[in-house]
Amino acid sequence: MSSVLLTDIASLVTNDPSAGPGVLGEIPDAALAIVSGRIAWVGPARGGPACDVRLSAGGGAVLPGFVDSHTHLVFAGDRFGEFTARMAGRPYAAGGIATTVAATRAAPDEVLTAHTARLIGELRASGVTTVEIKSGYGLSVADEARCLAIAHQFTVETTFLGAHVVPAEHAADRAAYLDLVTGPMLAAAAPHARWIDVFCDRGAFDADEARAVAVAGQQAGLGLRMHVNQLQPGPGAQLAVELGAASADHCTHLTDADVDALAQSTTVATLLPGAEFSTRAPYPDARRLLDAGARVALATDCNPGSSYTTSMPFCIALAVREMGMTPAEAVHAATAGGALALRRDDIGVLRPGARADLVVLAAPDAGYLAYRPGVALVAGVWQGGRPVL
Amino acid sequence: MSSVLLTDIASLVTNDPSAGPGVLGEIPDAALAIVSGRIAWVGPARGGPACDVRLSAGGGAVLPGFVDSHTHLVFAGDRFGEFTARMAGRPYAAGGIATTVAATRAAPDEVLTAHTARLIGELRASGVTTVEIKSGYGLSVADEARCLAIAHQFTVETTFLGAHVVPAEHAADRAAYLDLVTGPMLAAAAPHARWIDVFCDRGAFDADEARAVAVAGQQAGLGLRMHVNQLQPGPGAQLAVELGAASADHCTHLTDADVDALAQSTTVATLLPGAEFSTRAPYPDARRLLDAGARVALATDCNPGSSYTTSMPFCIALAVREMGMTPAEAVHAATAGGALALRRDDIGVLRPGARADLVVLAAPDAGYLAYRPGVALVAGVWQGGRPVL
Repeated sequence: MSSVLLTDIASLVTNDPSAGPGVLGEIPDAALAIVSGRIAWVGPARGGPACDVRLSAGGGAVLPGFVDSHTHLVFAGDRFGEFTARMAGRPYAAGGIATTVAATRAAPDEVLTAHTARLIGELRASGVTTVEIKSGYGLSVADEARCLAIAHQFTVETTFLGAHVVPAEHAADRAAYLDLVTGPMLAAAAPHARWIDVFCDRGAFDADEARAVAVAGQQAGLGLRMHVNQLQPGPGAQLAVELGAASADHCTHLTDADVDALAQSTTVATLLPGAEFSTRAPYPDARRLLDAGARVALATDCNPGSSYTTSMPFCIALAVREMGMTPAEAVHAATAGGALALRRDDIGVLRPGARADLVVLAAPDAGYLAYRPGVALVAGVWQGGRPVL
Repeated sequence: MSSVLLTDIASLVTNDPSAGPGVLGEIPDAALAIVSGRIAWVGPARGGPACDVRLSAGGGAVLPGFVDSHTHLVFAGDRFGEFTARMAGRPYAAGGIATTVAATRAAPDEVLTAHTARLIGELRASGVTTVEIKSGYGLSVADEARCLAIAHQFTVETTFLGAHVVPAEHAADRAAYLDLVTGPMLAAAAPHARWIDVFCDRGAFDADEARAVAVAGQQAGLGLRMHVNQLQPGPGAQLAVELGAASADHCTHLTDADVDALAQSTTVATLLPGAEFSTRAPYPDARRLLDAGARVALATDCNPGSSYTTSMPFCIALAVREMGMTPAEAVHAATAGGALALRRDDIGVLRPGARADLVVLAAPDAGYLAYRPGVALVAGVWQGGRPVL
């Protein structure tokens, strides 16, 4: 197994406070060594070990690959018409999900797989090296199971979201749908899923319903993550903390008590500014969460209804412009923050032993992702020690 | 000279109202023919003429190449530190331009040329096929002339902006600097420039000063474009109209009288949302201008201080999210609008006789540029009938 020394790195983001200063643990004029797909060494360029292969980062910044901890990649169809209507003044409603459910159910596996692969390719090109994928557009036992099986071909971070909305055919009997989600659907989904998720918000599920789904998933051995407080204030964020969720996602409308609860927990507040951008909604206040001591992640929320972006650099730029984050905090949230939201310590960090998942930028500092919005700065992507872009 | 038929076009944006419905004159399921670098024919896919070569657009949308009518590409250095400080709360001031002036004056021609070429490459990759480039970081006779000579290697749309700010060495005698700009500097710049521009705003030049610069440029045979009303309300927009400027750029702070004046003129309001994004300033109200009947363009304003983006798709997405434009209006402003701002009728439109400058998207509708923000949807770029990406 050959070793690689990557050098000519203007600034290396380690996310390891012991390696360098600041939230990013940055090392200027750095190099890193990769052996067997893992980071073997990081440090100043002059101190690198002998390796079989020596490659140049071209004087760019190097950072951990982005960890996109919240996506809905397995679907068919689009909702461009809904987007256009919304931009002309119609607000976003969770009910629009039904359009995608119908298209997804009607699509053969090959179509769903090919479409997911295309979006995975977009994510990788924008620097994502780990992606979480939720189900939630099947909403039947068979369709949730097949969507998760497809997702599982692309990532180990799969999430069962049968409790996305109540599908139309169950509208008259929500309790029966919850029995399905927590019974046969969960049983069919669990073999393909690491996580369970529930959308606790207006138009989706209330606190009692969300608790029932979450607890059933945990009893089936799944980790918990939740969609909370996207559309209005509500009980979701504190419920996520109470139940020990790895992540409370959206967190757009939080009370002081919600912020305090998150700050005193290990639950990560995963912010999804692509959704606020594409639904013209107010952005979550990342500054308030960070100042309170909460852990914050950024993710794309890639989905056809409310956030059809695959660009973590775009989300970083929004987080700085709109959410009060510094460029360094936004980069940290998109890498180490995402890893924490997935309870992973082998990614989102570049220190000896971590996976060699990394991004090379055509820019001297990771903060250029905010300084140069919309520009394709990702010049190289490595996964498990191999260049994939 | 071979002819090319480009087919498998899901939606062809012609910007020609006689070719199809809507502001974009869209033809669904279309084809277009190119002969000798010009559009020879557009129409339904089944009606295309016989051509030597037949190529597929892959079922994507095709639109005119973007016309970026406002950039400051010739400079050295960056202002990442200023950006980071501003995101932490310091407002944008035009005085920061002095940092770039010092770096640009110190840079050899080869460095400026190589850096400009790199930014041109970014612009092309994001679909720009015509770019305007301003001087304005030289601010001496020799440096303005050499920056324009460098710009002229890349485009015919070059603009003399000696009246960007008063440089530090002339701060004690503004009148002397104006004499320089309207005298020897103009004489040295004019052979390399098509346009003259002046920054009429707080911290830059007042109405009398701006008028003197504009009139001197016009008397030297240059067309007029002006930076106006970016930082605060002021006389710039109406002065641009009065003097017959092709474009009044920024237009962030307009009174009703300003909007009326623009609407009753042929002066295009060129909006630059990248600047508001990166200075965290309020966005211009495109809806108000469009509803009043004004002509609107979108451009990147690419510069290291206030808008270091080269992405017209990013500007389109911002225009829809923040400025009240529909996706179609934003696409029109970034193509036909830019052409109008440069008083060109051979670009920004796909009709017989126009230059074959076009973009092929990996998406079925040009509106996806707003629906899928941050995503690299530009799959192909043609300039003068030749694929360049």
